[in-house]
Amino acid sequence: MRLRNQPWAAPLIAANPNEILTRPENMPGRWQERFAKNQPLYLEVGSGKGAFITEMAQQHPNRNFLALEIQESAIGYILRKQVALKLPNLQLILGDGADLTTYFAPSEITGVFLNFSDPWPKTRHEKRRLTYKTFLAQYRAILKPAGVLQFKTDNRGLFEYSLVSMNNFGMQFDLVSVDVHNDARLSENVETEYEHKFSEKGGAIYQLTARFAEESAPHSL
Amino acid sequence: MRLRNQPWAAPLIAANPNEILTRPENMPGRWQERFAKNQPLYLEVGSGKGAFITEMAQQHPNRNFLALEIQESAIGYILRKQVALKLPNLQLILGDGADLTTYFAPSEITGVFLNFSDPWPKTRHEKRRLTYKTFLAQYRAILKPAGVLQFKTDNRGLFEYSLVSMNNFGMQFDLVSVDVHNDARLSENVETEYEHKFSEKGGAIYQLTARFAEESAPHSL
Repeated sequence: MRLRNQPWAAPLIAANPNEILTRPENMPGRWQERFAKNQPLYLEVGSGKGAFITEMAQQHPNRNFLALEIQESAIGYILRKQVALKLPNLQLILGDGADLTTYFAPSEITGVFLNFSDPWPKTRHEKRRLTYKTFLAQYRAILKPAGVLQFKTDNRGLFEYSLVSMNNFGMQFDLVSVDVHNDARLSENVETEYEHKFSEKGGAIYQLTARFAEESAPHSL
Repeated sequence: MRLRNQPWAAPLIAANPNEILTRPENMPGRWQERFAKNQPLYLEVGSGKGAFITEMAQQHPNRNFLALEIQESAIGYILRKQVALKLPNLQLILGDGADLTTYFAPSEITGVFLNFSDPWPKTRHEKRRLTYKTFLAQYRAILKPAGVLQFKTDNRGLFEYSLVSMNNFGMQFDLVSVDVHNDARLSENVETEYEHKFSEKGGAIYQLTARFAEESAPHSL
């Protein structure tokens, strides 16, 4: 969602170049240089205020995480946290999810997270949905062959659309849940701010975990 | 679901050989002979008491319908209706959904319906679920290349399982709905008896419509 402009965000970003990158197009193939250790790299596209990615970075010190967010005011909130936490395995990017192939080299990423992306419900805005085929092609380009896309949403229309879009793109599904918060398989679910508020009101959270199949011929028995 | 034994069912079946077949293994390639007109043939696997298939037959006189049911007592109820209605485009089969390739010739069927199939929730019973890969292989064998599988359930676990199973089998999704009764795209939904009772209590009905893709190479842009 769009946040009110936070006048403190731009100066904070300018003051912390070791924590946040604003020119990610200079970085393809070199992202590991930004981290304390060279370890598998996970990208969240559209991190909002960053509850998910900072929690993930704390829970998984053996992975590196990138929070990508287009809104200065939103990523300002993540940066405030990171300035305090100084997590060695978290880097922030002020950038556009439509430009991933200019930010990353092929196979540079191990996993992509999409959390509560804008549903763009109107048909004429289909191309803006982060599970539209042009975005899927980008994820495929930057992910390792066995890399995984994990998609969560509370929006029924976007979930239904994304199941069809990702299937039609030839992706292989690993897990579908129509009620993440009551799913024994997902007991380690990490919540976003939005998810926490929404599920407290009783709304169902949907998840799809899938990969880009290397070989996708019809299954034979 | 399993019904109490109905002692009237067996004699009713024996008395109406023009309405119901009990030896479908004699019929591959010859099903059109059972109908007044030669027109596209749709099969419901597990018809229960038949509310769905009889309504479909009435709504679509230009299609032929087959109600397959393994329980004598259940199909007895369908037969009672059909003896009264005498729909020229509906035939009944007392038979087993696991034997479809012995009942039907390749490409003999235009569409398969699975409605509220037994969820078989235990992992060790996975092979009994009507969306397990051996069943999918049967539907593929008897369906025309463009033929469609329409699957509805109220069971969350079976729905989640079936999305993954049908995707992993290489099927192409046409439509997913996580709330059929509140989905503008499905305003012509035909209910089963079970569905009607369940949704009156406020339960969500799920649907997946998919086909066996002839060509399922990964999508390229």
